[in-house]
Amino acid sequence: MAILHNDTFLRALLRQPVDYTPLWIMRQAGRYLPEYNATRARAGDFLSLCKSPDLATEVTLQPLERFPLDAAILFSDILTIPDAMGLGLRFAAGEGPKIDRPLRDEAAVRALRAPDPAASLRYVTDAVSQIRRALDGRMPLIGFSGSPYTLACYMIEGGGSDDYRHIKGMLYARPDLLHRILEVTTQAVIDYLNAQIAAGAQAVMVFDSWGGSLSHAAFHEFSLPYLARIAEGLTPAAEGRIVPRIVFTKGGGLWLESLAGAGYDALGLDWAVDIGEARRRVGHRVALQGNCDPMALFGTPQSIEVEVSRILASYGKGSGHVFNLGHGVSQFTPPEHVGALVDAVHRLSRAYHHDQPAGSPT
Amino acid sequence: MAILHNDTFLRALLRQPVDYTPLWIMRQAGRYLPEYNATRARAGDFLSLCKSPDLATEVTLQPLERFPLDAAILFSDILTIPDAMGLGLRFAAGEGPKIDRPLRDEAAVRALRAPDPAASLRYVTDAVSQIRRALDGRMPLIGFSGSPYTLACYMIEGGGSDDYRHIKGMLYARPDLLHRILEVTTQAVIDYLNAQIAAGAQAVMVFDSWGGSLSHAAFHEFSLPYLARIAEGLTPAAEGRIVPRIVFTKGGGLWLESLAGAGYDALGLDWAVDIGEARRRVGHRVALQGNCDPMALFGTPQSIEVEVSRILASYGKGSGHVFNLGHGVSQFTPPEHVGALVDAVHRLSRAYHHDQPAGSPT
Repeated sequence: MAILHNDTFLRALLRQPVDYTPLWIMRQAGRYLPEYNATRARAGDFLSLCKSPDLATEVTLQPLERFPLDAAILFSDILTIPDAMGLGLRFAAGEGPKIDRPLRDEAAVRALRAPDPAASLRYVTDAVSQIRRALDGRMPLIGFSGSPYTLACYMIEGGGSDDYRHIKGMLYARPDLLHRILEVTTQAVIDYLNAQIAAGAQAVMVFDSWGGSLSHAAFHEFSLPYLARIAEGLTPAAEGRIVPRIVFTKGGGLWLESLAGAGYDALGLDWAVDIGEARRRVGHRVALQGNCDPMALFGTPQSIEVEVSRILASYGKGSGHVFNLGHGVSQFTPPEHVGALVDAVHRLSRAYHHDQPAGSPT
Repeated sequence: MAILHNDTFLRALLRQPVDYTPLWIMRQAGRYLPEYNATRARAGDFLSLCKSPDLATEVTLQPLERFPLDAAILFSDILTIPDAMGLGLRFAAGEGPKIDRPLRDEAAVRALRAPDPAASLRYVTDAVSQIRRALDGRMPLIGFSGSPYTLACYMIEGGGSDDYRHIKGMLYARPDLLHRILEVTTQAVIDYLNAQIAAGAQAVMVFDSWGGSLSHAAFHEFSLPYLARIAEGLTPAAEGRIVPRIVFTKGGGLWLESLAGAGYDALGLDWAVDIGEARRRVGHRVALQGNCDPMALFGTPQSIEVEVSRILASYGKGSGHVFNLGHGVSQFTPPEHVGALVDAVHRLSRAYHHDQPAGSPT
């Protein structure tokens, strides 16, 4: 493997000293980039794009050609696991993902098995290897998975939902069935992420995108324990380096103390939390990743710089912060505003990593 | 005016002793009730239903015939204010509300004026008076309004949104324009709620439904100060009684300390917060309203009882809790499950309001 030239992102996740605050952007390879839309049009449907290691490599690299980002993230979808479980995944045009055989009865739940990634998710690990070769050590590559609760939402609802009434009906009426689904899915996520690490992923992130829809009590019973089991089951190091783990419960700002104890190196934050307050709450246990509102990119280059300054000042001096948005970048974002964000983070953050008063010019 | 026979709800909001935990249910007059759907079909469109004091009275009373709820809430819509401002409100079938002339430029913002409720919102105050007469003192009537930030979301986006990129674009690029809209709308909300109080509303609630979409910093600049100005401008008492005020920022669980200082008697809670923890955080400053996940009603009568027990135990002994869902009841809810909830709250809560160990049978 090539020498890693920029390890700022990995160091920040482990709260080791850095020269500036590294950043990447959720959905940095996505529809706001015309070159992404061109590749996607060539691929036909979205699933074909995910399943082609060549095309996945191509789109993973696109944002890195435009912006000096500090990490690449595997281009894929969180629904690869339900797909490999044989639930029948489709992406209907303009409709979002649909699962043909959602889990709604006991027989379907009992039949559920964790897939062997070497057999049915080989296209993902092939993409990881190919992206690593293409990156050639420029920056680290992040692997990822959905969380068990988030995957279960799709597997039970059969697609996106605005109320989650099928999974929550099961949660309240038949918690035993939901726990069974979550157990199988937890094993699937562990195997999947370890396969990504074996193929070359240098950090991994678990997206608990829908954990924030749960009540306080239900989150602590149906999402958090499975997140903790994943952390415990992950390969701790590869290629002589720690493989840092990030967990992100969108809407989970109330539960940061619990999440900080789940075995991860870093917590993702959405923009509802003040990052300085989050830092005080989690202490020295974890690094933090976030937490700019993606809609701040609909302001002006000047207002983007003001917002970046505010977030950097709130976090304060020292390592342990990876700058990011608090959700995926919107498809309607002007790419030059992403450029303004990247520039502002790199330029303004140096003052927080040297031995001088926070906020002073470098 | 008739003597008020059941003031449990008003007493709980003021943290005065009660015999049991009162409850009402957000959207208790709504699509889960066949009788509501029948009235709505007679009315034609949704706006005609809101604008007819006779029909608004009819649907307001429907859930009270089925369930022994402790409060009635005016049947209306939060978009009556943008409608009275002349922005052109329509409810297209199956599409949700649309505003024909959303506020997108400086000229439109400068032209915005707070409506005179006596002129353009008379149908609302007429409905309040008529509902009070029909209730005949059985239980108190709640009046309500959307919060300035929530109304501004609709007024700028032109309807519902899943990203709020127009209002947030304005927030970041032209905060002066957004503040101007919020100032005018704050005056409109004060005038509107005071007109409802004058017509007979015995408590008022401000729905900050979209405040939770803001960053921590933006919430404290663009929603909270306007909520506080409303509380200051409200008529404090009518008919010889205090008129309690409730504010509910959906998704605002991180900001309860700030909200508790905004001048309201009670805070609405969604289900992400543990209500016992919320009580510790706000101390004796405010009562709490909530906080059952509406999806808990998709369990069984037994699981509903378990969830009610959990919430009552978490709040603990003493007054200051109004039981409610953390969001409007879903249209798909079986009405008999609402009945099971009402029964469980009334039955199980008595143990928390007597001088005996919490949880013991009465």
